[in-house]
Amino acid sequence: SDRQAGQDGRTGESGEETSEFGQLGPVSHGPRLGIGMDSCVIPLRHGGLSLIQTTDFFYPLVEDPYMMGRIACANVLSDLYAMGITECDNMLMLLSISQKMNDKEREHVMPLMMRGFRDAAEEGGTSVTGGQTVMNPWIIVGGVATVVCQPNDFIMPDGAIPGDVLVLTKPLGTQVAVNAHQWMDIPEKWNKIKLVISKEEVEQAYQEAMLNMATLNRTAAALMHKFNAHAATDVTGFGILGHAQNLAKQQRNDVAFVIHNLPIIAKMAAISKAGGNLFGLLQGTSSETSGGLLICLPREQAARFCAEMKASRSSSLGQDGGIGDGQQAWIIGIVEKGNRCARIIDKPRIIEVPYRALLRHSPPRHSGAASTA
Amino acid sequence: SDRQAGQDGRTGESGEETSEFGQLGPVSHGPRLGIGMDSCVIPLRHGGLSLIQTTDFFYPLVEDPYMMGRIACANVLSDLYAMGITECDNMLMLLSISQKMNDKEREHVMPLMMRGFRDAAEEGGTSVTGGQTVMNPWIIVGGVATVVCQPNDFIMPDGAIPGDVLVLTKPLGTQVAVNAHQWMDIPEKWNKIKLVISKEEVEQAYQEAMLNMATLNRTAAALMHKFNAHAATDVTGFGILGHAQNLAKQQRNDVAFVIHNLPIIAKMAAISKAGGNLFGLLQGTSSETSGGLLICLPREQAARFCAEMKASRSSSLGQDGGIGDGQQAWIIGIVEKGNRCARIIDKPRIIEVPYRALLRHSPPRHSGAASTA
Repeated sequence: SDRQAGQDGRTGESGEETSEFGQLGPVSHGPRLGIGMDSCVIPLRHGGLSLIQTTDFFYPLVEDPYMMGRIACANVLSDLYAMGITECDNMLMLLSISQKMNDKEREHVMPLMMRGFRDAAEEGGTSVTGGQTVMNPWIIVGGVATVVCQPNDFIMPDGAIPGDVLVLTKPLGTQVAVNAHQWMDIPEKWNKIKLVISKEEVEQAYQEAMLNMATLNRTAAALMHKFNAHAATDVTGFGILGHAQNLAKQQRNDVAFVIHNLPIIAKMAAISKAGGNLFGLLQGTSSETSGGLLICLPREQAARFCAEMKASRSSSLGQDGGIGDGQQAWIIGIVEKGNRCARIIDKPRIIEVPYRALLRHSPPRHSGAASTA
Repeated sequence: SDRQAGQDGRTGESGEETSEFGQLGPVSHGPRLGIGMDSCVIPLRHGGLSLIQTTDFFYPLVEDPYMMGRIACANVLSDLYAMGITECDNMLMLLSISQKMNDKEREHVMPLMMRGFRDAAEEGGTSVTGGQTVMNPWIIVGGVATVVCQPNDFIMPDGAIPGDVLVLTKPLGTQVAVNAHQWMDIPEKWNKIKLVISKEEVEQAYQEAMLNMATLNRTAAALMHKFNAHAATDVTGFGILGHAQNLAKQQRNDVAFVIHNLPIIAKMAAISKAGGNLFGLLQGTSSETSGGLLICLPREQAARFCAEMKASRSSSLGQDGGIGDGQQAWIIGIVEKGNRCARIIDKPRIIEVPYRALLRHSPPRHSGAASTA
């Protein structure tokens, strides 16, 4: 179960995960992981297999329903990818349709959102076999990803050792980009940031954020095995620092995570500063949606991991031309001896991650700018 | 994925499942079941095992948060029970907290609802290992039930043959009972039904409905194996007729289902008539929440099935004192040769199911009448 904090969307929605809950069942063989990390791991009664499962749902935060569907699916799958799992046996879709939509809006928006979700599931090698849809004041989109694994299929997120380095596979700043995009229409908000960014740049940053959020972390999951990753999590609602702290707590060894570099979508750091440290982006507390994997890797493997991420074009999974082609990864910190905590150094280096060209893989046959409310 | 249609709850919520969606994945060995029935069945890559999974979520329809939690969990598990599955490997909880609740309401209501859900999960032999909670205008409660099964653990819902009989394991009328209970406070509604029922009877019918909705169909699932059931479904949002039709469509043989008897919570048929055929209860189209299993059984086994249901006190599962003790089951119809449809005969016999004593297993230490909005 991933922790997804919300962004104040254009339609006024705010999603906020307010609690974690649940209890572990009876003791049984095999590793078990309950509340607190990205997925739950349940030892099964059959032949050393484990059931690994996660659910996530939230409110739309981009205007394009097709991309929103893709983002929701990428966000659900990411919890599996954080455990180095590259396959998903089943996906359920959770949806609510807003009562406030008229028939036309509903017939336009919901099929696109479902299609985006399905396309991303297909890119992840799985398919949607069921789910549930209800009426609600707000649109909800999410899913449940489930896989049954052999022990070697997944990497428990608890094996970091001093000397490892921390790698991040997507830039930070999605919350700032999504909000800045909304503020273009709100003069009192826009006036605060217009000195540091143009509307064209906001649009590009928004497209870049959307592309990143819709990108599956599947290549990173595959490379975790190849380069012997010791632990990983995905960066979502609690920001890079929150998830680093959460991961640190899970470790078997006495380690601490120290973050030196913050790769951030270009200009988002400047916006955050101009707005008076908006969302705590530079403190690592700004929410991300469908963020990258934060991975503890042996030092000697990390550079090659990053190189293969960039070169992969999803080829390690026999794919070509997925939406996330040309992903980058950055070494952002180190694992040292310590008491299972994480921190960002005083003046971290901000890596400005440039905007790529606008969507090369734009969704087919739709205008792509329908209102979701 | 179950189809849950809504009831207009006291707090103004209405849950309505508006679509079924999804596509089957690539062909693979073993039985596979996608959209349209209660659970999805996914053949796994490992040793003949199948992943069986269902999700359901909806809005509160009773005032007691503890009972609402139990009902939500019973409703999720019921989709597994309909396939004769008695075990559940994992349960995730899906929750939203209403924004309209103040801190006090929230701290009172949500823990009770979660506890009810957990208690029912525990009665079902499983536990909640994760989930997600968001803020929303309305309260949502639901879950995801998952099990990995060997071929003999489940009964595909497609083996009915002419000569079978139809058995139902809970009485109908939950929607009428829940609504009648709300109408006691709405004079123009109450005036329409007060000639046929007293307020005390409405209260008893409501308690009876709540008890039935909170009862797990687990005993019935276990007895399906013992008495060689050929197919089953659970009765929820589409009413007895809707689910009978749905089940009929799934059959491998040329069969039709004919329903002769309608077991209904006492006086609910009279209310439905007085209100001008409210909800179509006598036509079999009134929504049920967490209804009984509708099971196709060999004729010679059905009477014994019903007798053991009544006698079981959940004993077939090694339990004693579960909330559903003293459940009944009724033979309600027959399977004949036909073209995969279902109907209710012209003048079905109404079986008035009397109210049991008020809750013998009342939830511990809470007042039990908190508003859920």
